[in-house]
Amino acid sequence: MPTPETVLAHADATLPAAREALFDLLRIPSISARPEHARDCLRAGEWVRDYLAGLGFTAALRPTPGQPIVVAHHPGPPGYRGPHILFYGHYDVQPVDPLELWTSPPFEPQRVEGKHGPRYVARGAVDDKGQVMMFLSALRAWHEAGGGIPARITVLIEGEEEVGSINLDPFLEANKAELATDLALISDTGMWDIDTPAITTRLRGLVFTEVSVRAASRDLHSGLFGGSALNPINALCAALGKLADDQGRIALPGFYDRVKPVAAALAGEWRAMGFDEAAFLGDIGLRAPAGEQGMPGLERLWARPTADINGIWGGYTGPGAKTVIPAEAFAKVSFRLVPDQDPDAVADAFRRFLAAHLPADAKAEVRVLSGAPGIEVAADSPAIRAAREVLTEEYHRPALLVGSGGSIPVVSSLKRILGIDSLLMGFGLDDDQVHSPNEKFEERCFHHGIRAHIRLLERLGR
Amino acid sequence: MPTPETVLAHADATLPAAREALFDLLRIPSISARPEHARDCLRAGEWVRDYLAGLGFTAALRPTPGQPIVVAHHPGPPGYRGPHILFYGHYDVQPVDPLELWTSPPFEPQRVEGKHGPRYVARGAVDDKGQVMMFLSALRAWHEAGGGIPARITVLIEGEEEVGSINLDPFLEANKAELATDLALISDTGMWDIDTPAITTRLRGLVFTEVSVRAASRDLHSGLFGGSALNPINALCAALGKLADDQGRIALPGFYDRVKPVAAALAGEWRAMGFDEAAFLGDIGLRAPAGEQGMPGLERLWARPTADINGIWGGYTGPGAKTVIPAEAFAKVSFRLVPDQDPDAVADAFRRFLAAHLPADAKAEVRVLSGAPGIEVAADSPAIRAAREVLTEEYHRPALLVGSGGSIPVVSSLKRILGIDSLLMGFGLDDDQVHSPNEKFEERCFHHGIRAHIRLLERLGR
Repeated sequence: MPTPETVLAHADATLPAAREALFDLLRIPSISARPEHARDCLRAGEWVRDYLAGLGFTAALRPTPGQPIVVAHHPGPPGYRGPHILFYGHYDVQPVDPLELWTSPPFEPQRVEGKHGPRYVARGAVDDKGQVMMFLSALRAWHEAGGGIPARITVLIEGEEEVGSINLDPFLEANKAELATDLALISDTGMWDIDTPAITTRLRGLVFTEVSVRAASRDLHSGLFGGSALNPINALCAALGKLADDQGRIALPGFYDRVKPVAAALAGEWRAMGFDEAAFLGDIGLRAPAGEQGMPGLERLWARPTADINGIWGGYTGPGAKTVIPAEAFAKVSFRLVPDQDPDAVADAFRRFLAAHLPADAKAEVRVLSGAPGIEVAADSPAIRAAREVLTEEYHRPALLVGSGGSIPVVSSLKRILGIDSLLMGFGLDDDQVHSPNEKFEERCFHHGIRAHIRLLERLGR
Repeated sequence: MPTPETVLAHADATLPAAREALFDLLRIPSISARPEHARDCLRAGEWVRDYLAGLGFTAALRPTPGQPIVVAHHPGPPGYRGPHILFYGHYDVQPVDPLELWTSPPFEPQRVEGKHGPRYVARGAVDDKGQVMMFLSALRAWHEAGGGIPARITVLIEGEEEVGSINLDPFLEANKAELATDLALISDTGMWDIDTPAITTRLRGLVFTEVSVRAASRDLHSGLFGGSALNPINALCAALGKLADDQGRIALPGFYDRVKPVAAALAGEWRAMGFDEAAFLGDIGLRAPAGEQGMPGLERLWARPTADINGIWGGYTGPGAKTVIPAEAFAKVSFRLVPDQDPDAVADAFRRFLAAHLPADAKAEVRVLSGAPGIEVAADSPAIRAAREVLTEEYHRPALLVGSGGSIPVVSSLKRILGIDSLLMGFGLDDDQVHSPNEKFEERCFHHGIRAHIRLLERLGR
């Protein structure tokens, strides 16, 4: 059997081809939040399916009530006795607005020079098409130069991660036997910095809600009714304005009841990482940390819950003046959660909070668009030990065990439904502009990511 | 010379023609807030100019940096010795959104049966095309059946009232000599109820602002940055949420310093009108009055200042979820003012208020889109006595002297620049849905309004 070294050399030599494949996938505007892009999501799913079929996988696009899910199987080499690995990723991407802030069209990927060498700029460059393509390129390298896929692998690539993976759990439930595996491998997280690899062992959860507040039965003239008629925007602002107290603590009833302080040892490791929050904020034009006062930066980002208004709208928003008291106002409000906080309980507390802070004539409705609890995975499993090992070989320095402030709801679904833990080995950087204009992925990260996955597949299969 | 009775009879007989003329004007979508309707505004101005020329006026469409202003002059009968009257109105209308709430297309006027008989439904039906056409129809009746226009009249119809009359003051300044007149007559206000005429002697002023709050230099992922990066929507809501205290008093520094309580006698007259605020609110689906607690309803509407958020927007507002911390957030915030409050001082106080309630990283900007002080006109002038007289003849009951919560900034401009008082005799009703979907004007009000203006022109010219 060829050594990983042969396969690594092949991956180095075929990096341009791997990039071109990624660019092909990036050119498909698979925005799952926009119904008009449903056809594009389907095309992206077909593209991934065909790519895997080309590597010898039994690959299919499986229907759901929303976007289809790619499922592909490979038995690995004859007599394989290692773990059956489930690779998870997503082919859908975030919306691109505000479009005018992009320096190149979001679905025309560019390779441009940056401070770390070439980078790829496009929506989905890193989240998650780029990271998915690292894994698929590692498979291709094994397929082309390594004598075949070196482990038993099931690939599951969904198309609704950016809209809350609403159809994934039922799909996992319905296909439990087919998806029975030993370990999930997910590449949708980040490194500590461009030279320091990281494995994520802690993720925040999320409750994403949409709030409507309705008052009068119609829009009103603020001159004729102002001073008597309730203004739902004023009421919504007054209520949402109380979401955090003056110490930055979230004011929902019972919100912190199940929030545990970070264990002293872990808190110590995080402090030792020397996180420079001033520089982190300086990169985005800010000076003072928001959030809970007096809490270390990494704890606020990785281990403390938050409340963010992700969108708000109501009344007249066109050019010029319109003296209207509108009939309704809306907001999208989300809460990042930490392990043990219950998404449903938080949504209920938010409903009670609004009821307590809105006048009786303001009829509020809270719709939960997605919810997933926070996650903490065991740091001492064989899979995580294997990943630390290959990352250390690849980068010549030890991989850090980090938290992430983001949510990957699938991690808890995989644990709950399939009973498997997830290994989160990702290659994004903090400045990749995920979900923002000019999203990018460093070529160096892409390249190391391919190589690390080549090593990991061999190491896990030993 | 023919008596008013002849002219009134002619107006009764030609009411259908007056309605058709109004409908022609209503079919022109002259939305001044929307640049794409600039051509329609011009058409509406041309329509009014041509109508007045047809009555023997020297009429012209006069350019401004924005929409043109119709100015028309008539010397009145030979040897006329009465006051030179300046009639003011506007041909522009409000935007029509939300369009889906209209029961018929806003620019296809309908005559439909309502609880008071036929009504006209269209954008601008009452504000202000319908009220302008009452006056123009009165002129037509005198022209056709009364031997000519009975008074010396200058007509000034602008096209930017709904966007703050931004070009009117410079126009008045530049044409002061030509517009030198004795008295302004304005029909843009309302009746007490459909059987009870009213003259408005008190108007609230207005400061209309647009606020922007900028935080990070780009949109951020709420997972990766939530808990550290300032969210400008959270910050804007927290600040605007403090606009009113828990007693409904506006919290800007010094806001009430120049707000005088209503004189006891006037407050008594208003109480005697028997305003039923529960019914007023019930009509629009509300139960509890908003605004200052413990203040009588008419005082809150006519004689107390307010703060309303007329529009708000920021972040992701499309379907589904997007976990973004946006870079910026916006609101349109306006303040209704009472006499003696200074619009500039209020705008400055708002800037100081935001600075005090926003964190240092939130860069706020407040642009004033329009401003006008509140107005109180003398209740015992000859013009107001004349108007009360003709209204009493027309309705067989005395006309009330009322306030209005709305602003007609031109009233203070006319006083300041031309030195004239305004007589505000209007025929709208509270439920006319001004600025809302399904704006309407009662035919009965239109008809009485034409007749009252026929009487008033004769009475003022005596």
